[in-house]
Amino acid sequence: MINKLCIIGIGLIGGSLARALKEAEFVKHVVAVGRDVAHLERAVELGVADSFETSISLAAADADVIVVAVPVGAMKPVFAELSAVINADAVVTDVGSVKGNVVRDAREALADKLACFVPGHPIAGTEKSGVEASFAELYQGQRVILTPLEETNTTATQTITQMWHAAGAEVQSLSVEHHDEVLAATSHLPHAIAYTLVDTLAQMHEHREIFQFAAGGFKDFTRIASSDPQMWHDICLNNRDALLEMLNRFSKDINQLTAAIENEDSDFILKLFKRAKTARDQNC
Amino acid sequence: MINKLCIIGIGLIGGSLARALKEAEFVKHVVAVGRDVAHLERAVELGVADSFETSISLAAADADVIVVAVPVGAMKPVFAELSAVINADAVVTDVGSVKGNVVRDAREALADKLACFVPGHPIAGTEKSGVEASFAELYQGQRVILTPLEETNTTATQTITQMWHAAGAEVQSLSVEHHDEVLAATSHLPHAIAYTLVDTLAQMHEHREIFQFAAGGFKDFTRIASSDPQMWHDICLNNRDALLEMLNRFSKDINQLTAAIENEDSDFILKLFKRAKTARDQNC
Repeated sequence: MINKLCIIGIGLIGGSLARALKEAEFVKHVVAVGRDVAHLERAVELGVADSFETSISLAAADADVIVVAVPVGAMKPVFAELSAVINADAVVTDVGSVKGNVVRDAREALADKLACFVPGHPIAGTEKSGVEASFAELYQGQRVILTPLEETNTTATQTITQMWHAAGAEVQSLSVEHHDEVLAATSHLPHAIAYTLVDTLAQMHEHREIFQFAAGGFKDFTRIASSDPQMWHDICLNNRDALLEMLNRFSKDINQLTAAIENEDSDFILKLFKRAKTARDQNC
Repeated sequence: MINKLCIIGIGLIGGSLARALKEAEFVKHVVAVGRDVAHLERAVELGVADSFETSISLAAADADVIVVAVPVGAMKPVFAELSAVINADAVVTDVGSVKGNVVRDAREALADKLACFVPGHPIAGTEKSGVEASFAELYQGQRVILTPLEETNTTATQTITQMWHAAGAEVQSLSVEHHDEVLAATSHLPHAIAYTLVDTLAQMHEHREIFQFAAGGFKDFTRIASSDPQMWHDICLNNRDALLEMLNRFSKDINQLTAAIENEDSDFILKLFKRAKTARDQNC
C-alpha cells in the first residue's frame, strides 16, 4: 500500500496508473504535479488525483513513491529537483520508453539518491494522450519492464514491482541496453515508419483524395502516427544509436524488396511475405 | 435482383459478397467455383453458396453475374474460359486490387465479350482469408471502386453498381491508372512495408524475445502482414510501376528521417511527426 503517490506529468500513462491503483485500493493519496494548472484541476475533477501542486519540491517532499511521467527529454531537471527534497525511504521510478539516456540523466541529477531509483517502462499506451484519455484498465495483462541498476535498493525495486502488480501488469527485468535494443525494434522503429509513411502520402498533391481511399488496414497501420509528436521526437533522439541500427536494417530490407519487385523476382517476394506472415501469426 | 450469381474463388471477398447479397435478398442462387472440392463443400455447408462446380464453363454458362475473385495473377485463364461460354447478357466483374494488369488480361482473354466486363475493387478486407472468414457486413459502409472501360456496356456497370449497393457499399468510378496509383499509396505500399518490418525483426537472432515485448501498437501496425502472401505477391508484381514509385518516395523519406536522427536535427524530426499526426488525424 502506498500512502502518498506523487505523479509528475499526469497524462495517459501517469493518469491510468493513478486510476488503476485507486481502483485496487493500493494508494491513499495521489498528488499530481505539473505546470498547467487547468490540466491539473482537470485531473482532480476526473478523480484521477486527490490534489495537485505546481512545485515538485512541495509535492514530493513527503511522498512514498514518485513516478516521473514527463517526456524522456524533460526528466533530468525533474530528477535534480527530486534529489534535493526526497527522504531516504522514498522510491522514484519513471515510465520513459528509453532507459539508457534516462539512467544517464538520473545518475547525474539524482546523485547520492540514485539507490532509490528504479527505472521502469510500462509497455502499454494508446495513440491518445492527456489525462482525459487515461483509464484504469490500461495496464491489465500488459508488461512493465524494470531495469534496476547495480546501485538500486532491492526494497525499492520490490515496491515498484508491487505497485505495477497492483495496477494489473506483469513485471519483468531487463538490462538497460537490452531494453533499448528491444524497444527500438518493436516500438521506436514502427513509430518512425508510421510517421514517415503518412508524411510521404501527405506530401503528394492529391493527398486528400488518396486518404479517402484508405481502408481499415491503413487505419490500423497508421494509428501510431497519431501519437504525441513531442514524446516520439524525444524517444527517437534519446534512443538514437539503437534506433539508427534498426532503421538501417529495415532500409536494407526495403531496398532488397524494391529490387526484387523491380526485377520481378517472384520467388524472393513470395518467400519474404510467407516468412513475415509466419512470424507475425506465431508471435502476435 | 440477380437470378444466378457465379463466384469464381469463394474466399473472404467472394464469400462475404455472397453472404451480403443473400441477406439483402438480392440473389436467388449462388454457385461457387473452384478447384478444391472440400473448400467448395464447406462454402455450401456454411450457406455461403447454394451449389458448387469445379468447371467454370458449367457454372458460368447460364449465370447472370460472374464475379472473378481469384488472385490477380490467376485471372487471365479464367477470363479466357468465360469468353467461350457466357451469354450476351451476362455481366462479368472482378475484385482484384490491381486494375491495369487485370484490364490488360481481360482485353486479351475476354476479347469480343469485353463489353460485359466491369473491372471492380472493393476497398475492404481483413488480414484473414478463406470462406470461413467471410461475413455479410464486410462491405457495409465501405467503398467499391469501379473502373469501367470505354467498351463497357452502361447497363453492365449499372448491374454491378446495384449489386455492390445491395451489399451495403458505396460505389465510385476512377480511371484504371488513377486507381492503381491511389491504391499503391494507401494499400500496396503499407503492405510491402509491414511484411518487410516483420521480416526485419524475424531475422534478428533474439527475435522470439523481441516479439514478446511488442505491445498493442505493434500488433495493429503489423496486422496486414498476416494477409495472404500469394495474393500480395501477385499484387506487388501486377502493380509494379506504381508501387515502385511509392517505394522510392517512401525510401527517400525514411532516409531523410534517418539522417535527421543521425544529425540530431530536432526541428526536422518534430516537424515531420507533427505534419504526419495532423494528416492522420484529419484524414482517418
